Amino acid sequence: MGMKFARFKRNEELFLGVVEDNKIYKLQTNPDSFEKFLEIALVEAKASVEEKNLEEVELSDVVLLSPIPTPSQIICQGVNYSIHRQETGMDDQKPPFNMIFSKAPSSVCGPNDAIMRPDNVKLLDYEIELGLVIRKPITQDTVITEDNFLDYIAGLVLTNDISARDVQLTQLQWLKGKSYRTFCPVGPYFYLLEQEDVAKIADLKLELRVNGEIRQEASTDQLLYKPIETLNELAQIMDLQAGDLVLTGTPGGVAMQLSADEMNCMTSLVSKFGEKVEVIQRQHTLGNYLKDGDIIEATIASTDGSIDLGKQQNVVKTLQSISV
Amino acid sequence: MGMKFARFKRNEELFLGVVEDNKIYKLQTNPDSFEKFLEIALVEAKASVEEKNLEEVELSDVVLLSPIPTPSQIICQGVNYSIHRQETGMDDQKPPFNMIFSKAPSSVCGPNDAIMRPDNVKLLDYEIELGLVIRKPITQDTVITEDNFLDYIAGLVLTNDISARDVQLTQLQWLKGKSYRTFCPVGPYFYLLEQEDVAKIADLKLELRVNGEIRQEASTDQLLYKPIETLNELAQIMDLQAGDLVLTGTPGGVAMQLSADEMNCMTSLVSKFGEKVEVIQRQHTLGNYLKDGDIIEATIASTDGSIDLGKQQNVVKTLQSISV
Repeated sequence: MGMKFARFKRNEELFLGVVEDNKIYKLQTNPDSFEKFLEIALVEAKASVEEKNLEEVELSDVVLLSPIPTPSQIICQGVNYSIHRQETGMDDQKPPFNMIFSKAPSSVCGPNDAIMRPDNVKLLDYEIELGLVIRKPITQDTVITEDNFLDYIAGLVLTNDISARDVQLTQLQWLKGKSYRTFCPVGPYFYLLEQEDVAKIADLKLELRVNGEIRQEASTDQLLYKPIETLNELAQIMDLQAGDLVLTGTPGGVAMQLSADEMNCMTSLVSKFGEKVEVIQRQHTLGNYLKDGDIIEATIASTDGSIDLGKQQNVVKTLQSISV
Repeated sequence: MGMKFARFKRNEELFLGVVEDNKIYKLQTNPDSFEKFLEIALVEAKASVEEKNLEEVELSDVVLLSPIPTPSQIICQGVNYSIHRQETGMDDQKPPFNMIFSKAPSSVCGPNDAIMRPDNVKLLDYEIELGLVIRKPITQDTVITEDNFLDYIAGLVLTNDISARDVQLTQLQWLKGKSYRTFCPVGPYFYLLEQEDVAKIADLKLELRVNGEIRQEASTDQLLYKPIETLNELAQIMDLQAGDLVLTGTPGGVAMQLSADEMNCMTSLVSKFGEKVEVIQRQHTLGNYLKDGDIIEATIASTDGSIDLGKQQNVVKTLQSISV
């Protein structure tokens, strides 16, 4: 079973902790980059766990942070589960291409931070996703297999690809609608993969609730483009850095529900902006979009319990724009 | 008139140079980040120019590099000139939204580097663009005006948003088709803006030739969403870091030529993949897509000659994929 880590703030100071049985133990080391974490913190963590000389952290005293402090990139897979494809008006089969987009790194926030909805965003949606954390730079076309997977992927995190559907859908390119600050809660835990875990990446259960009601429930065995396939493709295209995140897509159950005609209207460049506005207006009549005060809870864990990425809990608030 | 800078490699060593009358003079300082460039190199450059104790670089001895070494993000505006909107089948008016997408930072290459076309990419296109270089981090909603513009924007570069149309158009999201390594030649010069230059940003002439034939010719006064408008919007959404690039969109004259129906088919999620393939096949019959050995030359300068971003010259070559 792999080790787990959390980052937290206590009295304005940042710390790294090792996680055991959902308790967090403070480490002395607090590396400022993911490379240094792998080099230095891991050594201390292993020794500390063996020596059992760990200081337990009172969770009520701390603010949990994203366990991956500053990814240089967040690369995302779109519509990568059949049920999510259906609910967005798409063919539910594995598509002929792996849809890739990005979120701005500044969208990252802590696992319990408030999601700040800009006041111009009216259709705020959730998307639970398994996040892969890159171990070392991938700077050229590289063949990644199950055997060398851990050379390139360090571990897993729970993420939520918060989306402003009114911005995302009307503007064709998704970067803006998915990049607002706080639109990517990450954590609480970073799970460091061991070789025995690699097969279990296809057996993780995702669950997301809003105000206690289950909205998303799925297994990563339903992923259409699998992590290895996606990483091989990305390596052909672009560099990835240590600590970068690859978000593998969300399953069904999001607030957005589109017919094929509606999705077509939104993506078509021939349909008038007025027609798109009508589609957006029907979305406003649906009940599941996030409202201020809503509480989103999300978990990802393997069915055998050996991999558990912890639980996020985020409340939705409004952010007033300063601009005229 | 602002100062100009170039970065170059000589005998495997990297240098920064100051540019005067299209000659490059080597500086002692070679900062490894854009912040340090602004802090340190600028001081040396100003003193050296005054004292006239500069070593001129033999251009035949050096390889010019991107003057901005490692942007953390490349944020791009799509279809931001009327003529380019027309040739891609779109309404030519200023659209109701500013289309924003990103290129991977690893797409950056030098101003004279070869453009490596992956062997699966058959529709390779060029897009000359004015690039804005961010001066200091923008980490919150910020009001940017003509008066404080230089607090946030350090200067200008010439860029080419090389695009694999077969990947970009069929896959809805543009990140992949625009992010292959070498798909963003930058430079040769970084032009450091002075307050008197700010108005001239709307009076720059862009010109791109392929094998000597003019393909793109336009003025930045035709930009639909202007730099200030775009920066204000980006500041509301995401953080920008010092040295990040904002590419302002390309004018008309690219190789891709689509009717409204064809563009609709490519973006529609209802049209079958087979129909999209037909649209792609017609593109293959057009003559202006880049072929191996083609030479792309691009320049951007103000009509009064006071701002001159230099000239790029890139040859197209094939990159064999290693993957099975």
